[in-house]
Amino acid sequence: MTKTPYKIGVVGVGEIAKNQHIPSINRNPDFEFAAGVSRHQKTEGVDNFTAIEDMISARPDIDVVSLCVPPQVRYGIAWAALEAGKHVMLEKPPGISVVEVESLARFAEQKGVTLFATWHSRYAAAVETAKNWLADKKITDVKIIWKEDVKHWHPGQTWIWQAGGMGVFDPGINALSILTHIMDVPFHLQEADLAFPSNCETPIAAQLKFAGNDALSLTADFDWRQTGPQHWDIYVQTTEGEVHLANGGNDMLIDGKAHFSADNAEYDNIYARFAELLKSNQSDIDLMPLKHVADAFMLGKRSVVEAFEE
Amino acid sequence: MTKTPYKIGVVGVGEIAKNQHIPSINRNPDFEFAAGVSRHQKTEGVDNFTAIEDMISARPDIDVVSLCVPPQVRYGIAWAALEAGKHVMLEKPPGISVVEVESLARFAEQKGVTLFATWHSRYAAAVETAKNWLADKKITDVKIIWKEDVKHWHPGQTWIWQAGGMGVFDPGINALSILTHIMDVPFHLQEADLAFPSNCETPIAAQLKFAGNDALSLTADFDWRQTGPQHWDIYVQTTEGEVHLANGGNDMLIDGKAHFSADNAEYDNIYARFAELLKSNQSDIDLMPLKHVADAFMLGKRSVVEAFEE
Repeated sequence: MTKTPYKIGVVGVGEIAKNQHIPSINRNPDFEFAAGVSRHQKTEGVDNFTAIEDMISARPDIDVVSLCVPPQVRYGIAWAALEAGKHVMLEKPPGISVVEVESLARFAEQKGVTLFATWHSRYAAAVETAKNWLADKKITDVKIIWKEDVKHWHPGQTWIWQAGGMGVFDPGINALSILTHIMDVPFHLQEADLAFPSNCETPIAAQLKFAGNDALSLTADFDWRQTGPQHWDIYVQTTEGEVHLANGGNDMLIDGKAHFSADNAEYDNIYARFAELLKSNQSDIDLMPLKHVADAFMLGKRSVVEAFEE
Repeated sequence: MTKTPYKIGVVGVGEIAKNQHIPSINRNPDFEFAAGVSRHQKTEGVDNFTAIEDMISARPDIDVVSLCVPPQVRYGIAWAALEAGKHVMLEKPPGISVVEVESLARFAEQKGVTLFATWHSRYAAAVETAKNWLADKKITDVKIIWKEDVKHWHPGQTWIWQAGGMGVFDPGINALSILTHIMDVPFHLQEADLAFPSNCETPIAAQLKFAGNDALSLTADFDWRQTGPQHWDIYVQTTEGEVHLANGGNDMLIDGKAHFSADNAEYDNIYARFAELLKSNQSDIDLMPLKHVADAFMLGKRSVVEAFEE
């Protein structure tokens, strides 16, 4: 590994890259933002390329890449980067299939490079506090309420409605990424109801029922049709009280009272973790949230609902 | 482990148990068929129970169970059997979700017992011959054609049409279980088209396109509406000729000429393998076929087709 700062190229210069990745890279002294790769977008002050292959040949000094492209095209770009010996960070979800990400994981291991399949919500401010609080308690009941207005949060993002884009599971997988991190006990999907708009390839709403052992009750309610108050809440009932992770994991309440809260620094935390992985030559690939989503599609009942018009 | 013959209970005494499992158990000197568990069916000459818990308490000498129930109820019964320290064989598919089977695998390991997630088509007569022939060759193109008449082969099986029953993937996963066994190179799903009858929760047909590296082309065509000739064929083109596995893996042709053929002995082979696993205190759980199916549901496009009337 070269010494820090690691020269990093960002592939896919859309909203998430401009609003989160690039600012976090620029704030982190372990990284030097060196290039942008995008078919249409140019980024000031760095080299710009329209394909990763061009960046690889023009800038061999860039040995880290961060992929912010939609999941439908992630695999091919990630493979090309790994093949060239680059270390790779993947935005969530890490791919459109479980098997393709397992394939990337094996390839990264063969090449001896770092692969980091990120789940940004795991880096929300209160998540570790909640995990620690829960560590020695018995969980009896979990409710996830993840309801947002897709028109407000995902304007013009056509890929979320295309096969592989996962629809409401694109935000919903964030909740599952938090829950699979803070809960030590295993759980698996038992029932799912998926609502597909008549003109879309992916669902706009999903109701999930999980099972665990010892009569654990666990449900999730994902809905993209929410107007008015937006909900990104996880309620975890234990025999010693209830944790409520609110605001996407940034606020934590115990039995309804504020316990911990901090500003959202998810992407700063992600890049700090990425630097750690690079320095220790490790990978971090946990596919459990993606497996739960695949399971929901496999065993879920489908209903067709009103067409979605943006 | 007790000495052979292993006393074995069969849970779920439907067609597959009566036509395949029980005859194969009776032909194998390593096993003694000791009990049947079924809500409605009685089996002559052995103890009969209506729930696995009753068998566990009445017959502690039975320490091996074979589960032939539909996948929707498999997890709970498997868990109860593992919890009681029994060795467990699962018919395919091993469950309705990837995560629940991973959970069973971990539990079996904790309990120190054997779990065998079977894929009966892997034990078809010509499969190993095909695997060996392919081992040193470069595969360029694979076509799976799996088309059968659901009304002929699955009469009255309502569970296949219910969420979790997988529809046409119930036979299709057999083809995937063969292919993932005979091919050394990895592949992953890229596109899927799933056709759901308007009155069913699971698809009646599926077209799959996989990708691998080195421009491998791999497609699968599953259809349950096939009348006339039935097809369970896998064509594997290599740079040194083509293998055709026909008749569900029981016949093998090279470049169109008969190469190997034998009578179907899938379930005899499965119980021989199970005895091996029990004697060596090992498990055999490969979830790759199930992961491909989950991926197909997750990234597939759905269309609604004519209602299915039996």
